[in-house]
Amino acid sequence: MINFCTQCGGKVASIIPEDEDRPRGVCQSCGFIHYENPKMVVGCIPVWEDQILFVRRAIEPRLGLWTLPAGYLENGETVADGARRETTEEAGADSGDLIPYGLYNLTFVNQIYMMFRTELLHTDFRGGTESLEVKLFTEANIPWDEMAFKVIHVCLERFLADRKLGHFPFHTEDITFQKR
Amino acid sequence: MINFCTQCGGKVASIIPEDEDRPRGVCQSCGFIHYENPKMVVGCIPVWEDQILFVRRAIEPRLGLWTLPAGYLENGETVADGARRETTEEAGADSGDLIPYGLYNLTFVNQIYMMFRTELLHTDFRGGTESLEVKLFTEANIPWDEMAFKVIHVCLERFLADRKLGHFPFHTEDITFQKR
Repeated sequence: MINFCTQCGGKVASIIPEDEDRPRGVCQSCGFIHYENPKMVVGCIPVWEDQILFVRRAIEPRLGLWTLPAGYLENGETVADGARRETTEEAGADSGDLIPYGLYNLTFVNQIYMMFRTELLHTDFRGGTESLEVKLFTEANIPWDEMAFKVIHVCLERFLADRKLGHFPFHTEDITFQKR
Repeated sequence: MINFCTQCGGKVASIIPEDEDRPRGVCQSCGFIHYENPKMVVGCIPVWEDQILFVRRAIEPRLGLWTLPAGYLENGETVADGARRETTEEAGADSGDLIPYGLYNLTFVNQIYMMFRTELLHTDFRGGTESLEVKLFTEANIPWDEMAFKVIHVCLERFLADRKLGHFPFHTEDITFQKR
């Protein structure tokens, strides 16, 4: 929520600018228009043989629950660079090539997730400051009931189904609400 | 560039917050941290038989040059919804299904492009306020020398090559500089 102008510090009102069709934060002093747009979250499904690497969150939201390494894309990064950085930061893991796997629309939080498949180069991983624990799970042991985010749940179910078929077509999916 | 705090109007300085590894705009009055992230641009390659629909830009940058319908993804939109909206706004065109085709990293402007393939439902299109002209081109007539953006140039070359082979695998590509 933008209350004050980033350019002059003046008060901002939510109004529809001329030639536009939706409200923007418009500065009542200098007229500067503030555009707010969805953010990208980028992450990996890190694979080692028949196992998948999960991290247990040390931070809110969903502290203590399991997820895949993922986080906000930063300025100056490619989507693959960002996904690799998050995998290093959150899981201390080194990955091989990153292969685009799925894109997920989370319109209710204005986020677009992009997930990659990747193979771990070795099992010498360890958690960073944002992870309580980092662990490999076989399909039978995945902690479905302690999963932090619905988008990761959806991504994993698809991944496991694709793995049985032996091919991983790129897909997009709309995530309509949070599981918890 | 953020000079004043969006929450309290205080002065913002670019400093590295505790527990972070890169500078952010931090308010010197209330401590609010401003995160700036890449924006998504979404668009279509609209196809009619052997032709592709282009728009000629009525706005800066690259006024008067040709491009494909594309623009910033808005809050609350899926990537496909956004690409369809831009195709309607800029080309007045109705499209069928949108199929994810390519994702392009433009780190030098902090943009991520996502382009879809789509077939026009009819040829009753017309430009909006942002287009001087809307026109179908066969491959032989594409105005390569009057193309507005390198990312579109790259996307089209790939599309035409894929069309000869008859399959269109999803791909990502890094765009390293603007052509013009």
